[in-house]
Formats: sequence, C-alpha cells, structure tokens
Amino acid sequence: MHHAYIVHYLPQQNSNEHRGSTSMGLKMERYIRDLQSNIVREIEALDGKKFLVDSWTRKEGGGGTSCILQNGSVFEKAGVNISVVHGTLPTAAVMQMKSRHKELDASKPQKFFAAGISIVMHPHNPMVPTVHMNYRYFELKDEETGRAKIWWFGGGSDLTPSYFFEEDAIHFHKTLKSACDEHDKEFYPRFKKWCDKYFYLQHRQEARGIGGIFFDDLDDRPAEKLFEFIKDCGNSFLPSYVPLVKKRMNAKFAESEKRWQQLRRGRYVEFNLIWDRGTKFGLQTPGARIESILMSLPLTARWEYMHSPVVGSKEQAILDVLKNPRDWA
Amino acid sequence: MHHAYIVHYLPQQNSNEHRGSTSMGLKMERYIRDLQSNIVREIEALDGKKFLVDSWTRKEGGGGTSCILQNGSVFEKAGVNISVVHGTLPTAAVMQMKSRHKELDASKPQKFFAAGISIVMHPHNPMVPTVHMNYRYFELKDEETGRAKIWWFGGGSDLTPSYFFEEDAIHFHKTLKSACDEHDKEFYPRFKKWCDKYFYLQHRQEARGIGGIFFDDLDDRPAEKLFEFIKDCGNSFLPSYVPLVKKRMNAKFAESEKRWQQLRRGRYVEFNLIWDRGTKFGLQTPGARIESILMSLPLTARWEYMHSPVVGSKEQAILDVLKNPRDWA
Repeated sequence: MHHAYIVHYLPQQNSNEHRGSTSMGLKMERYIRDLQSNIVREIEALDGKKFLVDSWTRKEGGGGTSCILQNGSVFEKAGVNISVVHGTLPTAAVMQMKSRHKELDASKPQKFFAAGISIVMHPHNPMVPTVHMNYRYFELKDEETGRAKIWWFGGGSDLTPSYFFEEDAIHFHKTLKSACDEHDKEFYPRFKKWCDKYFYLQHRQEARGIGGIFFDDLDDRPAEKLFEFIKDCGNSFLPSYVPLVKKRMNAKFAESEKRWQQLRRGRYVEFNLIWDRGTKFGLQTPGARIESILMSLPLTARWEYMHSPVVGSKEQAILDVLKNPRDWA
Repeated sequence: MHHAYIVHYLPQQNSNEHRGSTSMGLKMERYIRDLQSNIVREIEALDGKKFLVDSWTRKEGGGGTSCILQNGSVFEKAGVNISVVHGTLPTAAVMQMKSRHKELDASKPQKFFAAGISIVMHPHNPMVPTVHMNYRYFELKDEETGRAKIWWFGGGSDLTPSYFFEEDAIHFHKTLKSACDEHDKEFYPRFKKWCDKYFYLQHRQEARGIGGIFFDDLDDRPAEKLFEFIKDCGNSFLPSYVPLVKKRMNAKFAESEKRWQQLRRGRYVEFNLIWDRGTKFGLQTPGARIESILMSLPLTARWEYMHSPVVGSKEQAILDVLKNPRDWA
C-alpha cells in the first residue's frame, strides 16, 4: 500500500526541533501531505491506474514525496509532489529576495524553511485540459530565537486547454473565485490578473492557458489568516478540475486534434523551460531534484515549423482566447 | 523552383551602401548563401523531399531565408537558415559584449551587422545522429567611416547521436579536425574542448552530444584569414555528416529504440531552451523571428519520469559517453 508510505512520512510529533520548523511550517507541512494524499486517491479513482510514489531526501536538509502517474487510462502524465526543505540560503539568493523584502539582511546567508505542493496533470484526451496547481510557504528564521523573521505564502492554480469550452473556463474560475471571496473580495480579481501576467509566453505573445489565480510574497495579514486562505485554495483543486475531466475524458477526437494538443504541449514546454521562474530557480539550485522539477513536462510534445491554424477553426478559437485574456467569473 | 528564390536574394551589386555592409560583411553573406544552397540541394537529394523556402525581412533592418524540411523520408525535421541583419544594438546588449571586447564604448547604442548560417537536422531513424552547425560574422561599425571597428567570427558544428557508434564519432571529429589543422594546429584541440563545455546540460550533468568544435569572438588574426578558416569549416559540413546518414538511414530499429531517441530529443529541447545562449538571446531580441530561432527543436520529444537505462545496455553506453567526453581525433 503506497499510501501508507506517504502517511509514514508525516511528522510524528509536535516538537519541531528535529527539522527546525516553526509551528506554521509544521502546519503547512501537515496540510500539504493530507492534500497530496487526497488528490492522489481521487485521481487514482478517476484513472484506474496507481501513482508511483517516490520519497527522497536532500542532503542539504529536508526532502519530499513525488507521486507520478504515467500512461494511465485518462492521464498521459500526472504528478503530485510535495517538498519540505530547509537549510541555508546563499547570499546571492538572499540578494534576489531583497528587492521584494526590504527588511532582509542581504549581507549574510540566511536559514530558511520551505514547504510546498506542486501538481501538473496532462490528460490523453485533447478535449480535457491540462491543469497546474502549486501552493507554498516560505520563511527565513532568526538564528537566535528560531522564530520566523520573514515569511510568505505563494502559489496558484491555472488551466491549459487545447480546445476552448467556455463553460469549463467559467467553472474553473468560479470555483477559485469562491475560495478567494471568503477571505477577501479583492483577492480573486488581483490574483486572476497576476496569473494572466505570469503564465505568459513573451516570445509568442500568448498566454499559456486560460488562467486561474497566482500570487506570491503574500504576507499582508496574520499568517494564520493566510493559511486558512491557502487551505481553501488547495481544497478547491479537485472541485475545480475533476468535473471537467469527467465531462470530457470519453469525448471522441480526431488524429488532427491529437496533433494540435501535441503542438500545445510544445508551448507548455516552452513556457516552463524559458519563462517559469520556479523551474529556473530549481534548475540552478544545487542539490535540487531535477526529476521532480521537470515532472511538469508532458510525456510527449511536438514542434512544427510555422504551424498556423485555419481561420475560423476550433484551433484558432483557443488561440484567440490565449492572445486576449478574458474575465470568466 | 524555390532555389531561384534564394538566388534572387543574393546581393546584386558590389556596392554595400544599400545595406551598410562592409566588404567582409558582403563576402560572408555571399558565402553563407552559397553554402545554404549547396546543403539544401544535397540534403534534398538524400531525402527525396523538397525543403520549404521562406524569405523574411526584419523591420529593424535585414532579413533571412529559412529552408525547412518536415516529415521527409530520412529527416523528421531539418532546417537550414541564414540571416543577414543590421541595425542599432541597444546599450544593454553593448554592455553584455563589453566584458569580452574591452575597447567597446558601452555608453551609447552601436550600429551592427551580423550574417550567419544555422543548421539543425533531426533524422527519423534513431541510429542516425542529429547534427547542428552554425557560423556567423558580427561587426560593430564606426558611424563616420562606415568601417568595422570591432568584428569577430563564431560558430561550430556538433553531433548528437541517440546511439553510440565509435566510428561515426571519429569520422565526424576527424573531418572537422582536418578543416581546422590547415589553419592552425591549435584550433581543433581548443575548439573541441570549448564545444564540450558549451553544449553541456548542467542540470543533468551530461553533454548534449559527442561534441565537435565551437568558438566565439574569434578576431586574433586578419579577418581574411579567419574567413578562409570559416569557409573550410562550413565546407566540411556535408562530408562530416552525409556519410553517417547514408550508412545508417536504412538500419532496422525497434520501437523501444525510437522511444529512447524521443527521450534524447527531450534533452535536446532542454539544452536549447534552458542553456543555449544563442536561443536565449534570440528570444529576447525585439523583432526576432521566433519560428527561425525555434526551428532547432525536434518535431517530437518525450519526457518520462525517472527514466534510467538498464546497466550494460546500448542506451547506457551513449549516456556514459555523454557523461565523460572523450578524444576522438
């Protein structure tokens, strides 16, 4: 039973000294482990195939659990990863953060703790969208007291369809909006815009998908309040996505539609390898686990020279949406 | 006849004022146009399918001709591009060059001219290696005299096999070494090492392929002498590669070998999108032609989580070579 494996890695005690977590660090860790477990269970029920579970440790401190489903009946490739890491941040990395967190002392390395969950699911059927979700908690700790000096939450969730179904876009966005609205009516509009801006392929002048929410460096209210918000976001993942999968997973499609999906997968690879700051940061981090970082890449992708959809086609319809982000909720 | 199209774009006169080329700029342009034409002709004869020829202009100055063969009988995707561009280099770009060219005045934008040929060929048969070649001439011009103030040549050629055949590696390297040796016995060893260092996937700790030659900022002897060297390098492309294609293009292969090739194509995509400075620079250049820059990507690629070849297999053999660059000539 591989789920037992995940559970085994749950922290067994409230004491945080063994891994240097603060109490929020520990809460976030518990939450993302539960969420991973729930999502894995639900997706396995949908697909029929089991995830491969891989727990790993990082010699610099901490580790994670990667759950991967490859060549399933519904999903070509799906990954549900968590990582809970700690250690010392090099001054170069501290410098990078300084512009956003003025109070940081960039003159010396800093002790950090980070806990995050990261999901990407690429389905077989070109009518079912690809989905991405990631939530994380980050803190820098005071050497003397061991308490968080600076901390923030970040993350989001976004949808990348190959074919455009307006009702799917609306369902996805409305589900996220409900989670946001319970905490702050400003959240959804702000984070929706941020998402459109972040998941954007500059060189193609098009968005990666139809968006969702995205935010970073969130620390403008008590950590406990933001943690409640993060949990509501994380808990809205399955209701935002699973109904779309169920509705479209048995849809008929033509060879040409599969090929279009493969071309869109190529764009997904372009975004992740060229523009995604998380991927870039990961690839440059010594001791990072490459296979976990690159699990976001699709199983297969395609690049055709100068491919351009026929005017008025369904392929053109999704491109139009990607070039002109809309409001959905 | 699409070849006529290429010829049509050859400069019709020796006067260079219409596009602001110096005489070396013009010679390089003529040379790369001839080379493109020869290579296209030879590869068409090999494949049986014709290249698609696309001439384009850049509103900031200059243009190029892209020749692409897709879904041929031998090649999955092959591109033979030239570009001859000129304009004003933003100060940010001048700053980047300043570290390598101290005499540059980085306080103001500079007029530049660049002419280059760029080739990538991805064959269908996993026993036939992918090849890459690129040679370019770059100059910054004095505003008053119109003559080159600073100039250099750069480029190289390298081979990326999915399966390892020692005799192929030796043939490829020996052909390049001969071209180098006629000009300077130091060239091949220096440029071979440079190539191994440049085409390296840091995050995988492996080389992209079995190398070849690579150099940049070459300006340490008269431009005429270096131009002769560049021509010998360019002319060695067909003899270095075509015999390998002929030898292996009808080789039998298994489905599992095709899949391994697809995984290796994934690594090729990773290198080009994450590490290749030329691609990065291109994608950030306003007015750059994205389809020409990304023609280097394979038609299809694949990423499997934690794929690892069986010890002692042919797949492991090529990985061993990529992790430990050897001397071939």
